[in-house]
Amino acid sequence: MSSSSVNLKSVPGRLTSSYSEVQASRLDVSLPLPSVLKSSFSVVDGPKSSAAGNPEEIAKLFPNLFGQPSAVLNPGGSSVLSKDTSLKIGVVLSGGQAPGGHNVISGIFDYLQHRTSGSTVYGFKGGPAGIMKGKYVELSAEFVYPYRNQGGFDMIASGRDKIETPEQFKQAEETAKTLDLDGLVVIGGDDSNTNACLLAEHFRGKNIKTRVIGCPKTIDGDLKSKEVPVSFGFDTACKLYSEMIGNVMTDARSTGKYYHFVRLMGRAASHITLECALETHPNVTIIGEEVAAKKQTLKSVTDYITDIICKRAELGFNYGVILIPEGLIDFIPEVQQLIAELNEILAHDVVDEAGVWKKKLQSQSHELFEFLPPTIQEQLLLERDPHGNVQVAKIETEKMLLQMVETELDKRKQEGKYKRDFLGKTHFFGYEGRCGLPTNFDANYCYALGFGAGALLHSGKTGLISSVGNLAAPVEQWTVGGTALTALMDVERRHGKFKPVIKKAMVELEGAPFKKFASFRDEWALKNRYVNPGPIQFLGPAANAINNTLLLELGAQA
Amino acid sequence: MSSSSVNLKSVPGRLTSSYSEVQASRLDVSLPLPSVLKSSFSVVDGPKSSAAGNPEEIAKLFPNLFGQPSAVLNPGGSSVLSKDTSLKIGVVLSGGQAPGGHNVISGIFDYLQHRTSGSTVYGFKGGPAGIMKGKYVELSAEFVYPYRNQGGFDMIASGRDKIETPEQFKQAEETAKTLDLDGLVVIGGDDSNTNACLLAEHFRGKNIKTRVIGCPKTIDGDLKSKEVPVSFGFDTACKLYSEMIGNVMTDARSTGKYYHFVRLMGRAASHITLECALETHPNVTIIGEEVAAKKQTLKSVTDYITDIICKRAELGFNYGVILIPEGLIDFIPEVQQLIAELNEILAHDVVDEAGVWKKKLQSQSHELFEFLPPTIQEQLLLERDPHGNVQVAKIETEKMLLQMVETELDKRKQEGKYKRDFLGKTHFFGYEGRCGLPTNFDANYCYALGFGAGALLHSGKTGLISSVGNLAAPVEQWTVGGTALTALMDVERRHGKFKPVIKKAMVELEGAPFKKFASFRDEWALKNRYVNPGPIQFLGPAANAINNTLLLELGAQA
Repeated sequence: MSSSSVNLKSVPGRLTSSYSEVQASRLDVSLPLPSVLKSSFSVVDGPKSSAAGNPEEIAKLFPNLFGQPSAVLNPGGSSVLSKDTSLKIGVVLSGGQAPGGHNVISGIFDYLQHRTSGSTVYGFKGGPAGIMKGKYVELSAEFVYPYRNQGGFDMIASGRDKIETPEQFKQAEETAKTLDLDGLVVIGGDDSNTNACLLAEHFRGKNIKTRVIGCPKTIDGDLKSKEVPVSFGFDTACKLYSEMIGNVMTDARSTGKYYHFVRLMGRAASHITLECALETHPNVTIIGEEVAAKKQTLKSVTDYITDIICKRAELGFNYGVILIPEGLIDFIPEVQQLIAELNEILAHDVVDEAGVWKKKLQSQSHELFEFLPPTIQEQLLLERDPHGNVQVAKIETEKMLLQMVETELDKRKQEGKYKRDFLGKTHFFGYEGRCGLPTNFDANYCYALGFGAGALLHSGKTGLISSVGNLAAPVEQWTVGGTALTALMDVERRHGKFKPVIKKAMVELEGAPFKKFASFRDEWALKNRYVNPGPIQFLGPAANAINNTLLLELGAQA
Repeated sequence: MSSSSVNLKSVPGRLTSSYSEVQASRLDVSLPLPSVLKSSFSVVDGPKSSAAGNPEEIAKLFPNLFGQPSAVLNPGGSSVLSKDTSLKIGVVLSGGQAPGGHNVISGIFDYLQHRTSGSTVYGFKGGPAGIMKGKYVELSAEFVYPYRNQGGFDMIASGRDKIETPEQFKQAEETAKTLDLDGLVVIGGDDSNTNACLLAEHFRGKNIKTRVIGCPKTIDGDLKSKEVPVSFGFDTACKLYSEMIGNVMTDARSTGKYYHFVRLMGRAASHITLECALETHPNVTIIGEEVAAKKQTLKSVTDYITDIICKRAELGFNYGVILIPEGLIDFIPEVQQLIAELNEILAHDVVDEAGVWKKKLQSQSHELFEFLPPTIQEQLLLERDPHGNVQVAKIETEKMLLQMVETELDKRKQEGKYKRDFLGKTHFFGYEGRCGLPTNFDANYCYALGFGAGALLHSGKTGLISSVGNLAAPVEQWTVGGTALTALMDVERRHGKFKPVIKKAMVELEGAPFKKFASFRDEWALKNRYVNPGPIQFLGPAANAINNTLLLELGAQA
């Protein structure tokens, strides 16, 4: 167990003296709270809950938590929480950065400052490993201050370790006991919140007093449900990417000679790509979930893009912008098949220069392999992970698609069906979006999530995920509560065992955001309806705008 | 000669109805003018001018213009210009986009609206080719409005053609005569302003009434002089790149495991990279001009980066951010030598697999070639332009340096001098910065440049570049005038002839911006002094901030 002074090196504190004017201006912004959090409230339980799927299995996996109700904070009421309580609360950041994480911590800290007496907040360092190794820092007002409304996770840093094995649960238990923790807030994505629930179950089962509350984090936007309308960070990341896309669009229109292929972060689901399309109106947008549903092939995706380029050429437009989700190839079944076969072949056979090895591929896979650009073929054969597997994640999808489109256009040119010169540029917008200064929405939303998490722990709740709703309304009218994590769960069969999972929320092809996109995309393809959202503003028009996806899902008009 | 209605297709107008809130909010912002432009003024000539170099040759090349004085606008005075004048003015955008171009045109338009009667502005389409082909649109208040304070050059689009041959000058002359042009404003970089001066000389020499005024445009920041303190677009582009760099820094610090190699646009000079370094404080910044001055090799640049990575590892920091100018390899003499030899060999010999061809390389070039990563070697040998030359511009310098650093770290690891795992990520920030919504500074500066250009033409000036000074002061106190383009010129010997050129302004190693950077870089290398400038703001703190380079060059403290 190491105290804060030991590890300062690995998490160097920020110096507000070196802050930019904009960073500094964000420090003292007073954040609005939902009105229920501004005076006394009571925590009211809802009806008994079930699970997202396979409730019998979830009941077996969470004997102590399954069925527990969700909770909602109501103004006033009888069960007003005591201000005399003193709580010891831990907080941990888990997984990739998302703008607003620091505000969740600020919210927890401020709740305990305002609503309890003499409470302590411990920040576990470097993610769940910090819990297991007992590495933490005790948060003070001075320590928290420089991080208010700032991007990044560097206040206590994050990590990708999981608490999985019995030994690891034991380590977590020991830390909880040593620090005499009343509660723990786990800020993370679907996996981390599943883990939070397992930890809550473990503590409850062993009669340990430490309660566990989750918070929905991920720029990918794929952790959401009815009660948890959006994960934090999605709003800021999409607006940052949309700013860049809007600029590239203006560039394309001004230059009149480039097609920009833009790959956007978001491996499992295409929410980011969809939201950026709704914000900017590109000529082509590929949504992974649609590609999967329609069982499209790489060839059909290539043809779709090429057809639009040819039609635009006929209209006199030899430029455009094409959005591609990072995880595209994971949605294409034939690619998965080819990769499975390649892994098998590469594990056992020699890849000969003459290409005799290719005879081992099934005919569809062979055809696909020959269709791929040479640089991608080479990448598939040469770059392998430590287990010898093909590294799909390393494939730069935007470059691959650009090359395939170029090849197809060359073919059509020879056939006399396309007459122009084609110039493509590729972009990947990723890391620069994970750590931006949070938008007003993310700043407010995160602060409310943290404040609400504090209230849930104060009222003795465990195994809930902090849930702030009614987000299309002004902040004062937002609802605050907690949703039973078990209610979000289903099971997956892994290594012959049932494992609980919070299923990733994929883009719904029947959902309002996709339907709006689908109704406009043909117009966007051939006409130029580009929108440049501009840089994120903290004051003035648009400063409090909310992303289209959330508004459309809430039934409000974007 | 084609009228505006014919070509609308190639320059589709903007629909403000589809503008984002931020775009729309910028439309009606009233731009402040320097006070001298707000009431009556007189245009006062300075002393006879000379040239930046070889005045005798410049005098021969510009017999009609050489020696003409620069002009400055003074408030009031005797030679107040008549409001009854009616002028026909053309305007053209030349070369790559830079934020603010639309405001220069708005400024010219508004000047003529306010200060003359019944004047006409023609926008030549698609750059200088529009002048030669007589393709233009007549600007109206309705046509100009949607572009106010917006990024891009799409109002009339730009192009890279030059007016060079006698036939082309003849074509320009015919357009000037047909449209009865009193004046032409050329908005462009060093080459385009040289071209503007040649055109001014041509018209003057042939007694054609059309006068020509230039405007300093380029995000690269390499068109500047005492009288022209900065080219427009530099401020916005640097702030956009710095926003992204700042986010990547926050990401690096949060994750604690990545080195980000960021290549920044700007081929000829490293001003953008230097400015971004001053704004964000990265761990390593490579400035091309310093590399050239110190005759550094690729190996020494690689060692410099690797040394800092190793020192940081000893301090416990296994992350960082490294800025690299796009044009880096153009500054390294040994690379130029290798490429010259490769072009020679590739033109005459067969490149054999066994590598016998390499014996034709001189020993230093051979050594350098072997030092390059295999993918770069391949790129040098395979990708050639239509003339068969190696395509240096296509080399992704950030990926090349990353690979060389990885190789060097592997070597040191084997020698036991480095013990960590190294993870690198690469970025190129380019196109997304050329077309952003202009900062308040660029919006105001461009409007004043355009307004001033109108005044210079109104007073009968030609062969000047619009010059707005005293930029560290509030807009009201800015000075307005025109600098003799011949005064900025020198000659270069090309194909046995003297050609006039405005020399690109390179980063001065004795200049204030570089010296400030140099005095801090060791601290930035080992300590983490990252600054996140955040998104460009149009209201509130920092909205009117001016870039460090300009402030330092003006002697004001940044």
